[in-house]
Amino acid sequence: MLDPFDDTYFMKKALQEAERAFEKDEVPVGAVIVVSNKIIARAHNLTEMLNDVTAHAEMQAITAAANFLGGKYLNECTMYVTLEPCQMCAGALYWSQIGKVVYGAADEKRGFNSLGAKLHPKTEMIGGVLQEECSQLLKRFFVEKRNLN
Amino acid sequence: MLDPFDDTYFMKKALQEAERAFEKDEVPVGAVIVVSNKIIARAHNLTEMLNDVTAHAEMQAITAAANFLGGKYLNECTMYVTLEPCQMCAGALYWSQIGKVVYGAADEKRGFNSLGAKLHPKTEMIGGVLQEECSQLLKRFFVEKRNLN
Repeated sequence: MLDPFDDTYFMKKALQEAERAFEKDEVPVGAVIVVSNKIIARAHNLTEMLNDVTAHAEMQAITAAANFLGGKYLNECTMYVTLEPCQMCAGALYWSQIGKVVYGAADEKRGFNSLGAKLHPKTEMIGGVLQEECSQLLKRFFVEKRNLN
Repeated sequence: MLDPFDDTYFMKKALQEAERAFEKDEVPVGAVIVVSNKIIARAHNLTEMLNDVTAHAEMQAITAAANFLGGKYLNECTMYVTLEPCQMCAGALYWSQIGKVVYGAADEKRGFNSLGAKLHPKTEMIGGVLQEECSQLLKRFFVEKRNLN
């Protein structure tokens, strides 16, 4: 039997968050954190609205998940995020000891892989889930920005 | 004439923040952010109290400084922090484009230098200011922790 709660299912939920960021004129990145097929945190990039470079979707989701769980370690959790985390977010994920990170589009310029940052050795990582959809949303955002200026 | 507002002066202010963390049973790391010899943000580690791995002194100081300035870029600012930033904080400093980072003690295990994370190319960095005082406070914390367990 097919599992309805697969990586694609939750990445779609992260994409919905990214679309919320898009609507607010924020770089459209979204994230959800899941435990036992239940979403315990949803967040999207708010760096412009909050005037704060630390307000990436992942950072807010980590804070929200820890708040929900009442503990700061996310060993049993999976994060779904539409864009490969930057080194700041990879660093936060490292400290959280999160069980698994699934990302959509790769970020070859600012992603943690190319910048050399590290996740926790216990953290499983998968990239490229709904890569095309995640990437298209970002491209559409930057094309619209360019045309406005 | 000697400049009273040198790196040592502001690192002492960061150390005062670290001592506040110590008093709250938090890993004693403190930070201040300075513009034109004026402190615009002070923070200390609150990961235990807030149950949040992202609540490092540097992260809070970046958010507070951006809030004070009304803009998210810290090009004209200097951060003084008692411990070498981790990759999460280095990543946040990268996004902030901060002008200068001065740290006290090196963190050979979890510091951004050894983990391979990067600051912004425009960011000047100095380490080792009041290194001994910053390091002693951390050592005292961990010795006391060990003796309690």
